[in-house]
Amino acid sequence: MNALEELAESFSRLPGIGKKSASRMAVYILKSDPSFAKNLANELLTLHQRIHPCPHCGAYTEKDLCYICSDPLRDKSLLCVVEQPQDVQTIESSHEFSGLFHVLGGVLAPLEGIGPEQLSIAPLLEKVRSEQIAEVIIATNPTVEGDTTAMYLQRLLTQCNVKVSRLASGLPVGGDLEYADKLTLQRSFRGRISM
Amino acid sequence: MNALEELAESFSRLPGIGKKSASRMAVYILKSDPSFAKNLANELLTLHQRIHPCPHCGAYTEKDLCYICSDPLRDKSLLCVVEQPQDVQTIESSHEFSGLFHVLGGVLAPLEGIGPEQLSIAPLLEKVRSEQIAEVIIATNPTVEGDTTAMYLQRLLTQCNVKVSRLASGLPVGGDLEYADKLTLQRSFRGRISM
Repeated sequence: MNALEELAESFSRLPGIGKKSASRMAVYILKSDPSFAKNLANELLTLHQRIHPCPHCGAYTEKDLCYICSDPLRDKSLLCVVEQPQDVQTIESSHEFSGLFHVLGGVLAPLEGIGPEQLSIAPLLEKVRSEQIAEVIIATNPTVEGDTTAMYLQRLLTQCNVKVSRLASGLPVGGDLEYADKLTLQRSFRGRISM
Repeated sequence: MNALEELAESFSRLPGIGKKSASRMAVYILKSDPSFAKNLANELLTLHQRIHPCPHCGAYTEKDLCYICSDPLRDKSLLCVVEQPQDVQTIESSHEFSGLFHVLGGVLAPLEGIGPEQLSIAPLLEKVRSEQIAEVIIATNPTVEGDTTAMYLQRLLTQCNVKVSRLASGLPVGGDLEYADKLTLQRSFRGRISM
């Protein structure tokens, strides 16, 4: 294997990258100015040193506290619970939510040995008890594991005297009824909104 | 922009990589062992030093001569002409061709200022005149530019007293007539094979 094939092989280990795409990426870099490769290499080498989880919410950050937790203008009475650190950025890009976040670090999956202790659930309850939080919005994925985790949290949180909600599940905007699966259609009926 | 977003931004400059894929790749690397990032960075940093075009055929190689040109078992009477260095690897992976290669370095594109002088055409003619080549197989892409370049080469090469051929164009194997475009269908009729 030469250097070009080795690079393509490494790229093909990344998620969603097949052999052909990996090879195309490697050739593109070879044909580009070496400064691009150098820059990319530098970003890769410093990534793990620069990025760490925010100690308050768990989102990825370079600072002591992430830009959301350190923003005095965010609504501290709203807490959005997500599975993964990268979900914070996805929700931020919708510009719909102005509160704070809490990253669980996964979902309950007993078969894989992931119980409540493996997730950031105790810190979540502690936060809800000690801070002035009016509503917890559970934004785990609309999957079996995400729903199970949401229900588990809902039971714990209602004991803390806080409003608990869950992101709506239903037809995606711009989607087509014809292509909606049975479960999504069921959800959209059960969650229908009077107009 | 933090280190994770910078890395995703760099990845999104690669061909075929959208913003979401780029972000997923960056998160994957952050979650992987740092040795993966280090290894990838090292491959990027050494790529341009290690890889250069083979002086004889133009394919990418790390050696003085590429493994094809230096292989005494290859059929030196067959020469396959391709557009790009990476096309050599694509054809090699089919295990169908046992001759040597010649990389043009592109196709004729007068509007972009690419004429015969910008491509490796003079060295090709020199090779055909001085070496014992019986057949030149033109494997430029079946596009307007690829076809034009093939016809241009065919005119020059027939004067060199060498057999000139072109890769067959037609329905892709496993494809469906229903989805074939008009031009491909035309080609498959004109190039039909008696059976």
